[in-house]
Amino acid sequence: MSWNRVAVVGAGIIKFGELFEQSYEQMAAGAFAAALDSVDEGFEPTQVEAAFVATQRGTLWGQEGIGGNTIPTAIGLAGIPCTRIENACPSGSDAFRVGAMAVASGVHDVVLVIGVEKMRDKSADEGLLARAAAGHPIFTRGETAPVLFAPFATRHMHEFGTTREMLASVAVKNHHNGSLDPYAHFQNEITIDDVLNSPAVCAPLHLLDCCPQTDGAAAVLLVSAEAAERYTKKPVYVAGFGVATDHPYLHEKTSFTGLKATQLAAERAYAMAGIEPDLIDCAEVHDCFTITEILDIEDLGFVDKGKGGVASLEGDTSLTGRIPINTSGGLLAKGHPIGATGVAQIVECWWQLRGDADERQVETPNGYALQHNVGGRGSGVSVINILTNNAS
Amino acid sequence: MSWNRVAVVGAGIIKFGELFEQSYEQMAAGAFAAALDSVDEGFEPTQVEAAFVATQRGTLWGQEGIGGNTIPTAIGLAGIPCTRIENACPSGSDAFRVGAMAVASGVHDVVLVIGVEKMRDKSADEGLLARAAAGHPIFTRGETAPVLFAPFATRHMHEFGTTREMLASVAVKNHHNGSLDPYAHFQNEITIDDVLNSPAVCAPLHLLDCCPQTDGAAAVLLVSAEAAERYTKKPVYVAGFGVATDHPYLHEKTSFTGLKATQLAAERAYAMAGIEPDLIDCAEVHDCFTITEILDIEDLGFVDKGKGGVASLEGDTSLTGRIPINTSGGLLAKGHPIGATGVAQIVECWWQLRGDADERQVETPNGYALQHNVGGRGSGVSVINILTNNAS
Repeated sequence: MSWNRVAVVGAGIIKFGELFEQSYEQMAAGAFAAALDSVDEGFEPTQVEAAFVATQRGTLWGQEGIGGNTIPTAIGLAGIPCTRIENACPSGSDAFRVGAMAVASGVHDVVLVIGVEKMRDKSADEGLLARAAAGHPIFTRGETAPVLFAPFATRHMHEFGTTREMLASVAVKNHHNGSLDPYAHFQNEITIDDVLNSPAVCAPLHLLDCCPQTDGAAAVLLVSAEAAERYTKKPVYVAGFGVATDHPYLHEKTSFTGLKATQLAAERAYAMAGIEPDLIDCAEVHDCFTITEILDIEDLGFVDKGKGGVASLEGDTSLTGRIPINTSGGLLAKGHPIGATGVAQIVECWWQLRGDADERQVETPNGYALQHNVGGRGSGVSVINILTNNAS
Repeated sequence: MSWNRVAVVGAGIIKFGELFEQSYEQMAAGAFAAALDSVDEGFEPTQVEAAFVATQRGTLWGQEGIGGNTIPTAIGLAGIPCTRIENACPSGSDAFRVGAMAVASGVHDVVLVIGVEKMRDKSADEGLLARAAAGHPIFTRGETAPVLFAPFATRHMHEFGTTREMLASVAVKNHHNGSLDPYAHFQNEITIDDVLNSPAVCAPLHLLDCCPQTDGAAAVLLVSAEAAERYTKKPVYVAGFGVATDHPYLHEKTSFTGLKATQLAAERAYAMAGIEPDLIDCAEVHDCFTITEILDIEDLGFVDKGKGGVASLEGDTSLTGRIPINTSGGLLAKGHPIGATGVAQIVECWWQLRGDADERQVETPNGYALQHNVGGRGSGVSVINILTNNAS
C-alpha cells in the first residue's frame, strides 16, 4: 500500500447531552463552527470541497434516505458534495476513513467530516426499538444492545475471573475523565458501589455499566499532509486505519471473550501505520458497556487477553496509568450520539496529540493516539483510526 | 486535481422486478456473482479488499443502522470492510465515486461497489410513506416524489411550449429500450396514447410518466488503471465525476426549468474528465419522471435549455439518435431500486463502451458514456460519473 498522507487541521465538538432545543442541522453547524474556530490560521470555510456526514439512525430525525442533503445549506456551503456514511456504531469513524481516502486520492484538497446524531427527540413509539421491530427479519427480533453484549461479560468472567468490580472500575474511571471534560454529557464522579447498586439491565450489566442515549455532533477538517503547515504549527496526521467485519450472527461467533472484527481491524491499522500497539500513548475505544472497553483493550493489544479487567481495576488505563483509555469520558460518560461518536473520539485524540486537553492531558511521548468503535448486530464491524503528530 | 485513474473490470446486475422470493442479501450476492462472471480472466473473489454498499431506505428491510454489515458474510467475504453509502436517489452513483476514490488513494487495490434496494416487500403501513410521515419536521409533510417534480413539468410547458406528448415520448422510448433489456423490470412497448390515457398521478404527470417501484441489485469491481490489463482486454476507465448539492427547500430554488445541482455537478464532471458534453456517446440519466429526463439532457448540455421535449419527440435520444439516452430502459422501464440504480447505470455504460450491449448497442465513436442521478427532497443533490474506453 502506498498512499499520500492526510492531516487533520481542525477539529471541534458541541457539548453532548439532551439537545431538544437544537435541530439536527443546528448541531452539525455547531460542530462545523467549532472545527473552523480550531484552525490556527488562514482557512476559509469556502475551501471545503466535499463533506462526509455520519448519521446512523437517520430515521429518528427524518434524515433517512435524504443523505446529508440538508447539511450544506445549513452550514453555508450549498453546492458542495455531501455524502452520508453509515456503518452502524462506527459510522463516524468510517466517515473519517472515507474522508481521508478522498483527500489521499487527490480528488479533493479539503474535506469536512461531520458526525451528528439525534437520539433523544423521538418517543419510544417512534424510536430505536420501534424501528428495530420493523426491521431485519432475523437480527432485530428481541435483541437489544445489552442483550448482545452481556454474554461477552459472563463468558469473560467465567474464563478469566473478571468480576463485577472490575467492570465497574471502567465506569468509575470514565466518569472521572468525563468530570474533567466540558463537552461530556455526564460530568459527575461515581463510585464502584454506585455501579454495583444501580438497577440491573441484563445480568451482569447494570445501569451504570451502560452508556446513555445522547445527542451530539463533532467535525474535523482534513487536508493533505503537505498542505497542513499552511494552517497550523501543530499538525496531526492520519497514520493509518483498519476496518474489519465479522459474521453478524451470534451463532457464528467463534469466541465470546473477544471481538474478532476488532482484532482483524487492529492488525490492519497497525500494519498501515507501521507500528506496534506499545507505541500508542492513549486511546479512545468503544465503551458502550463496561465489558466492551475490557474486550477492546485486549483486542487492541494494550493488555493480554483476559487481563483487561485487572488492568482496569488497578488503574493501568487511568489518566496517569500506563495506557490512558477514554480520556474524554468515553461513551459511558461523554455519551454515544452514534454518528458523532467516532468523530468526537478523533477530536479528543487530536487535542491530546496537540497538548490541548487541559486537565485531561496525558503524556504522549511516542506521538500516537488510537480511536476505535465496534458496532453492528453482534459486533459485526470494527473501525480503527490511528493519529500521530510525527511528521513522517 | 491530480489523481490516479481507476478502471472498472467487472460489472453485473440481477434481473430487476418484484423480487419477493429473494432477501436483500441474496440480491446483493447475485449482483456480486454477475460482476465476478463478467471479469475476463485471472480474478479471485478474495482479491476484494473493501466494499461500499449503496442502500437508500435501509429501514424497509431492516438494514437501517447496521450498514453493510450483513453483506460480507452473504457474499463469502466475511472480514472485509463494508461501508454503507447513502445519498438519496444517487446513493449508488455516489458509492461508485467513493469506491473510485478508495482505489485512487492507494489504500485499496480492489474495491467492490454494490447497490441494492428492497422496495416491494413492505406494506404501505411500513413502507416509504409511513417512514416519511415519521420523518423530517419540514421535508416530509405531504410531499411525495410526483408532487416535487410536477411543478418542473408545468413550468417547462409554460416557458418552452413543452407538451404532454413530448413528455410521453420519453416513456415510449425508454420502454422500447427496456423491451430489449433482459434485466429490465418492464419489457413491454407502450405508445404515446398509452401514456396520455394512463391515470393522472399529479398533473401533468400520469402513471406512465412515473417510474415503478422495483427491487434490484447491481455490482462493479474497481482496480487501478495500471492493474486493469491483468483482468481484461477491454478495460473501461473512470474519466471523471462530479457531485453537487442545491438548497433542498423548494422555496429557495431559483429555477423550475432546470436542476441547479445537475448543472453544477456536470461542470465538475466534465472538468475532471477534460471533455465537453459533445464527446459523450450515450448516457444513462435520471428519468424518475418523464420531465426529469428532459431536464437532465438540457442540464447535462446535450441539448439547449428548453429543447429537451422537442429533441425527445423527434428521436434525438433514441438508440439510433444523435445522443442515445437510457439505452437500458432507464428508471421508467428498467426500474428504480434506489441504491441499485446508479450502479446499474454504470453497468449499462460499461456494456455499451465494451460493445456488449447486444440489441441495445449504440455507436461509441468518442468512447465516452455518462451516468447521472438526482435525488433528495427538491432535487437537492446530483451525482455524475463519466466512463471511457480511452486508455489515456
